[in-house]
Amino acid sequence: MLNVVDQTLVNDLTSEPSSLQRRALAKIITLLESTRMDHRKRADDVLNALLPKTGKSFRLGISGVPGVGKSTLIETLGLYLINKGHRVAVLAIDPSSSLSGGSILGDKTRMERLSVLDNAFIRPSPSSCTLGGVAEKTREAMLVAEAAGFDIVIVETVGVGQSEIAVAGMTDMFLLMQLPNAGDDLQAIKKGVMEIADLIVINKADIDPDAAMRAQLFITSSLRLLGFQGNPEHASHNQEFWHPTVMTLSALEGVGLPELWEKILRFQELQNANGLLQARRKAQSGAWMSDRIDAGLKNAFQNHPAVQALLPDLSAQVNQGTMAASVAARRLLEAMGHEFF
Amino acid sequence: MLNVVDQTLVNDLTSEPSSLQRRALAKIITLLESTRMDHRKRADDVLNALLPKTGKSFRLGISGVPGVGKSTLIETLGLYLINKGHRVAVLAIDPSSSLSGGSILGDKTRMERLSVLDNAFIRPSPSSCTLGGVAEKTREAMLVAEAAGFDIVIVETVGVGQSEIAVAGMTDMFLLMQLPNAGDDLQAIKKGVMEIADLIVINKADIDPDAAMRAQLFITSSLRLLGFQGNPEHASHNQEFWHPTVMTLSALEGVGLPELWEKILRFQELQNANGLLQARRKAQSGAWMSDRIDAGLKNAFQNHPAVQALLPDLSAQVNQGTMAASVAARRLLEAMGHEFF
Repeated sequence: MLNVVDQTLVNDLTSEPSSLQRRALAKIITLLESTRMDHRKRADDVLNALLPKTGKSFRLGISGVPGVGKSTLIETLGLYLINKGHRVAVLAIDPSSSLSGGSILGDKTRMERLSVLDNAFIRPSPSSCTLGGVAEKTREAMLVAEAAGFDIVIVETVGVGQSEIAVAGMTDMFLLMQLPNAGDDLQAIKKGVMEIADLIVINKADIDPDAAMRAQLFITSSLRLLGFQGNPEHASHNQEFWHPTVMTLSALEGVGLPELWEKILRFQELQNANGLLQARRKAQSGAWMSDRIDAGLKNAFQNHPAVQALLPDLSAQVNQGTMAASVAARRLLEAMGHEFF
Repeated sequence: MLNVVDQTLVNDLTSEPSSLQRRALAKIITLLESTRMDHRKRADDVLNALLPKTGKSFRLGISGVPGVGKSTLIETLGLYLINKGHRVAVLAIDPSSSLSGGSILGDKTRMERLSVLDNAFIRPSPSSCTLGGVAEKTREAMLVAEAAGFDIVIVETVGVGQSEIAVAGMTDMFLLMQLPNAGDDLQAIKKGVMEIADLIVINKADIDPDAAMRAQLFITSSLRLLGFQGNPEHASHNQEFWHPTVMTLSALEGVGLPELWEKILRFQELQNANGLLQARRKAQSGAWMSDRIDAGLKNAFQNHPAVQALLPDLSAQVNQGTMAASVAARRLLEAMGHEFF
């Protein structure tokens, strides 16, 4: 199925760590991100060829508002892990990247010490018109990084909206960073992000240790109050195995880093021992597939000539109240050739 | 467009209040709820004919867990309003009705005094395999009741899940009922229902007035703590115009009923004066149309022969990790004849 060029890319990618491998990794991700139809077909074949070699990394999602210290934590944690013999890939989901024409997340200049290491790979957020599109390319890039032997993949996102849900939906553990400031915590609760966090880290504890401790106590009691501990709908939040916990650290000073890694290892261990990791990943794959089907169906709808011809008038009629929304929906689906009610 | 039978139904429905009108109302709703394709087409024509006469009622959504006293409040409020010269239709959304083969909500025996009045119309929940299907039929029934001159439409639902979101999405005001018991409030917060409530009513205040007052204080402070007051994403929760408020009453004793109606009128007044009602209804129509398009597209996908042939194998491959979810999604969409990436 693979053409000669792509077969070479796959061979290079799955060879020993080298500059050749890193180049193949970057090239394959670029192929995945291309909007050309022929590239997409090649990328699918490459993905299929790589799939048996994927799934062996620990996938860690990290989120937090701008200024919380995500890059500092990722760089410090990345250096710490590479020192322990790991290989660390850092990917990013920045839904604003399609607007800005480029991403601030994953910018190499932000992680200067990490980005020069052979065992690190840092890739900025793909740009796409939709969050779903960005998330899809990041998920696929994660698989490619895994096939290249990176055993820890960190996916970071800015804490500004639905992107946290996307990141939690593609990682094994979701870490939410907070500032030692109660106001921000409430923002996170409001958006339903606190509910999906496996671990909450209060950063910059060195600046005001008292405020950090107050924030820790406040968030811990909020989690309890809101019943988010042991949320039965969240596979990893099985009360018997794991209570989402809150800890403080200083990413800049590296204080609390071994304790953070200890906690992450403990989480991994529990997930593996109880089959929760496998369950979470299966659920994620299933959800990913339906998401992409939904997005594709919507796309086909929007690009259908009969829909394009009818939609403006029917939307206007629904808007003016001269046609029921359900009737308009049925007209459009009939125009596409779908009989349904 | 209308055949003779349906034209007669429309004429009867839009005539003066009478037993003929009530029968036409019931018959048209039955037509809407039919799963026969020819019925559906007739129903669409009837809806289109009625649409100019719709939209003139006040649409009130009421939700709460089983046992909170919804039927008691609806009956008491309904009698109070009919006494003031209104005509009251009560519809229901019970997502479990398709399982039980019938609905406990809207059961006539529950509202004995209300159901016998000429100016009341009570209809149990339609049964359908999906919440979206139930909600659609209820929305359409609401339009028919409006065309029959009912100026207050109450849509009730059990407080057990997504159905509250559906009811809030089709009404002008969403009222959440609570028991004087702090544990239940937290349940509601967890599901994101508190966030969409325009008014929270603590019922059964007669049994333990102190507990009711404590619950009122607790919910009021929770709303403030969680930033749900003046939620800018919620059209009616514009801080300048309306703060979701909490009040106590006893539906059984009728204590607090005039105050409740006073508060509802104040809400209506503010919504009308500030164009929020129109904005909310437009947004609801738009969302309803996309919901139905999405449901129809999914339906067409699931019933497509090529999809049915490929889906089991592709799903199994994704589940076993031998194919990326995005690749499987693209294969299925291609099989339907959609080219996309």
